[in-house]
Amino acid sequence: MKRLLDPPALRALARGCAILGAGGGGDPRIGLLQALQATQDFGPAELVDIDELPADALIMPCGMIGAPTVHIEKIENGNEGGRLRDHLEALTGRKVAALMAAEIGGSNGLQPIAWAARIALPVVDADGMGRAFPLVPQVTMELAGIDVNPCVMTDERGNLIVFRAISGHWMERLARAAAVEFGAAAASTEYTMTAAQARGATVRGSVSLAIRIGEAVAGAGGNPIDALIAEIGAFRLVSGKISDVERRTTKGFVRGSVVVEGLGDDSGRLIRLELQNENLAALERGQVLASVPDLITVVDSETADAIATERVRYGQRVTVIAMPCDPIWRSALGLEAAGPRAFGYDFDYAPVEELTRVPA
Amino acid sequence: MKRLLDPPALRALARGCAILGAGGGGDPRIGLLQALQATQDFGPAELVDIDELPADALIMPCGMIGAPTVHIEKIENGNEGGRLRDHLEALTGRKVAALMAAEIGGSNGLQPIAWAARIALPVVDADGMGRAFPLVPQVTMELAGIDVNPCVMTDERGNLIVFRAISGHWMERLARAAAVEFGAAAASTEYTMTAAQARGATVRGSVSLAIRIGEAVAGAGGNPIDALIAEIGAFRLVSGKISDVERRTTKGFVRGSVVVEGLGDDSGRLIRLELQNENLAALERGQVLASVPDLITVVDSETADAIATERVRYGQRVTVIAMPCDPIWRSALGLEAAGPRAFGYDFDYAPVEELTRVPA
Repeated sequence: MKRLLDPPALRALARGCAILGAGGGGDPRIGLLQALQATQDFGPAELVDIDELPADALIMPCGMIGAPTVHIEKIENGNEGGRLRDHLEALTGRKVAALMAAEIGGSNGLQPIAWAARIALPVVDADGMGRAFPLVPQVTMELAGIDVNPCVMTDERGNLIVFRAISGHWMERLARAAAVEFGAAAASTEYTMTAAQARGATVRGSVSLAIRIGEAVAGAGGNPIDALIAEIGAFRLVSGKISDVERRTTKGFVRGSVVVEGLGDDSGRLIRLELQNENLAALERGQVLASVPDLITVVDSETADAIATERVRYGQRVTVIAMPCDPIWRSALGLEAAGPRAFGYDFDYAPVEELTRVPA
Repeated sequence: MKRLLDPPALRALARGCAILGAGGGGDPRIGLLQALQATQDFGPAELVDIDELPADALIMPCGMIGAPTVHIEKIENGNEGGRLRDHLEALTGRKVAALMAAEIGGSNGLQPIAWAARIALPVVDADGMGRAFPLVPQVTMELAGIDVNPCVMTDERGNLIVFRAISGHWMERLARAAAVEFGAAAASTEYTMTAAQARGATVRGSVSLAIRIGEAVAGAGGNPIDALIAEIGAFRLVSGKISDVERRTTKGFVRGSVVVEGLGDDSGRLIRLELQNENLAALERGQVLASVPDLITVVDSETADAIATERVRYGQRVTVIAMPCDPIWRSALGLEAAGPRAFGYDFDYAPVEELTRVPA
């Protein structure tokens, strides 16, 4: 059965992507507006399962790289995806069969759909994270041994760069430096793979999941946060208000921290969120409540709409939830790539479901 | 007649490249050692005139990009030129027939010879500047309308980047950012062209000229500075000692200024040199003695060996000479690209031969 990403699906998806973004991946409103416009102009993109594609079909993972604070104001021109596709085909001598979100979180879960609609290609129901992460090699394709090369990057002006790096680490350095030079936002593709490779190298079904999450929140009636928590198996860390935001855009990232002051049942509690594009860790009096690779998302206490790290501001009434990451990130390789120590923290990862059992 | 770049020619060339470098282009000793080693291991590279090549022969201009201060300590592994050539051939689908120094000045006048010897290709007797300049598009090929794309860049680790920029200005920004990420030194090629194009788009005979300059200085006996000045038609700006050096490596460049205190006949004079990789301007009590695009070179007062901007230090006995640039740089396009205002100075260019007629 052909599944088309029509406007209602896109709106639900945007809500779900925001929640799966763990604060990052860019403001989904930007991606949603682009996807809606492209859908109106070119018709809806088709959502396909990887298993529906021939084994040798080429999948192009793609999205934006840079600082979400910048991405709010520095908008794509819409042709980036087509330009990436054209150049990737020229480099590989093969046709691209489908686009895939490198990360389902935030705007990056929608951007590939906008591009796909414009060039009449399907989007696969999968991504490379099951959330959003700040670094290029923090994708399941890297864990699965897929070659990061070639990376193709372009900007809204029409500049184009091809990187062939000796490692995912070097790709991150080189791609980040270029993204910074472009003004801290650029479009890129890396980890090109066949459908056969993608079967074991991606988080499957994440587009459908994001749509389901969005629909659950939208259809929840009086208590969308309870509906959200039930739908995704999340844990409520705290409800309160934002009492402090320290945020800077530096070296191609948003970095900083946010303090949430508990209200109601949580009165007297102070939870600090540390962030690098995404929310990395939630801490209370020096104790870790949750950390990468598990997802920590700040949502509006009334609507359950996720609030991205670049949109958090003083006084917002919020609930912080945390949810288990895809199991691949809890493997030794996964934690090495995206666990607390990968971000410079001096503590070991513990699953959010264990941490929340310990009395705070 | 086949002209081989044997060790004596290379040694003379290194001396000449240092003088034509106007303080920049990297320490020629690094390029000389690499060229000598490659010559010993693979045999000497051949020097050819552009007119000896078929009209459609592909010429690869190449060299190092970055900060000369870094290049003293961060050495190439030798394979960069071959890697650039291989990738450029893959991109263009054509064979590279010869290498060319993008800039004859400094180490960059020798580096292509080291690479050419290793891959058994000739080097053309020309370059893109007739000196050294800090920025990527400050080459005669840009003035002649040759496409800067593709630029291929690599480092000693094996990373490789292809840039397709919308302008020379963007190429400079993107290539510089990548060079900085590589540690402020990288190997690159840009402005690929045919021999037919190169005939009107390069400074011809600059390798021979550099060798002649080196031979003149080496064979001068008692007064090498006079021999040098006679050979190249230079002007003596001042003789004295270095009394102050302010130098920093920043954003992929060496920047700063140097003060020369006159000695002997020049006693009481203070000349300031301003630099960005190269010496950009020589000033005395607010008056311009010489400026880009003319060449300003600091030479050892005893040996007439040029002292690069990254090697200048307090107490050195030096003579500062200036000489006319290639006439192309005095055209409107040339001055726009590499005149004083292109470097942020608020004065118009005047030829050094006119400035030196005015009493200081």
